[in-house]
Amino acid sequence: MEPVRFKKEKVVLDTSLFVNPDVRTDFGKTPTEAIEGFLSLAVQIPTVEFYMPPSTFQELLNFIDADRISGDLIATIRQKPPSKHELSCPAVLLYELIEDTRERVNKGLRIAEKAVRSSAKQDEKEVLQVLRRNYREALREGIIDSKEDVDLILLAKELDALLVTVDNGAIKWAEKFGIRWLLPTKFKDYLLSYIQRSSAKNPKTSSAI
Amino acid sequence: MEPVRFKKEKVVLDTSLFVNPDVRTDFGKTPTEAIEGFLSLAVQIPTVEFYMPPSTFQELLNFIDADRISGDLIATIRQKPPSKHELSCPAVLLYELIEDTRERVNKGLRIAEKAVRSSAKQDEKEVLQVLRRNYREALREGIIDSKEDVDLILLAKELDALLVTVDNGAIKWAEKFGIRWLLPTKFKDYLLSYIQRSSAKNPKTSSAI
Repeated sequence: MEPVRFKKEKVVLDTSLFVNPDVRTDFGKTPTEAIEGFLSLAVQIPTVEFYMPPSTFQELLNFIDADRISGDLIATIRQKPPSKHELSCPAVLLYELIEDTRERVNKGLRIAEKAVRSSAKQDEKEVLQVLRRNYREALREGIIDSKEDVDLILLAKELDALLVTVDNGAIKWAEKFGIRWLLPTKFKDYLLSYIQRSSAKNPKTSSAI
Repeated sequence: MEPVRFKKEKVVLDTSLFVNPDVRTDFGKTPTEAIEGFLSLAVQIPTVEFYMPPSTFQELLNFIDADRISGDLIATIRQKPPSKHELSCPAVLLYELIEDTRERVNKGLRIAEKAVRSSAKQDEKEVLQVLRRNYREALREGIIDSKEDVDLILLAKELDALLVTVDNGAIKWAEKFGIRWLLPTKFKDYLLSYIQRSSAKNPKTSSAI
């Protein structure tokens, strides 16, 4: 009889887990410490595979002290781009994306007009500051707006993985694509649950499958 | 022996063919005349089916004198929405759409900043006018930016039809989707070619297949 093969749980990680100060504190005070904290748990869980698109991994490298990070980082977080030429997207999502963008673009123009009108009364520098903040908020928040975002979504879809992110745009699209997602604030508990289950099954060693 | 069945040629029409003054003149001086002109040719070509998404047809009705249009319009231009929940889009196009939008959004902010800066020297009304024109040009031209545009593209894809449009955004997406497209300025010749071939084959009647 062939042994039963378990399908490993797969997890796709966004950088926010390590970089965003509001959510990374579960793992460490700085991005570098957060990665070390994550790795110390991850290596104890042979039943879960961790992934990151190379584009996201590159973003992460901007925040960490690469010299302090061991080979465990590269061995534990698999860098894989999505198979973007093989995957497809339901056409109905095109409508949502285009209508959403259209509304945001119109809102952006209203914000710009308001800025021009207020520049008669206010300091130019201040007007520009408010303009930039409001414009970016209207046109970028809650939307996937970069190829890094698309990479995350498509990789999670391709691998049927759990997406760990705090990004509202990515979460919205995970919902559209039927992708499981988890906030980073819950992620440490998720890992600890795997570790506990693994050591309950194999009291002498936690690395056996 | 079964008779050979011909697959009819299908054509998806944008409103520009009848509405845009630069291209409709082949068929008539006003939108209503352009439709009458088109219909007088179309009814002579039983081997071609003409389609329009209902959203585009609704747009068209805003431009024409509905009382002057005969039942031929509804009989000749088939209104069909695309099967948007069955169709899919290659995921790689998501990257193009999102990166393109991102660049345009950044350009929109630069335009807004420029407007604020110039409002110290120029008349507010004039600044707003320039802002609106430049912003719309940067964020809308050459992009599909409405559900009507998506309808046209997806319907042409679904039917493997020829798309007749002058819209740059629709043409760009037709290219991405492998959709045949034709400028309205060539469309009258296209129809006449069918009529000539049809009457050459059947010298006594032009309506036989």
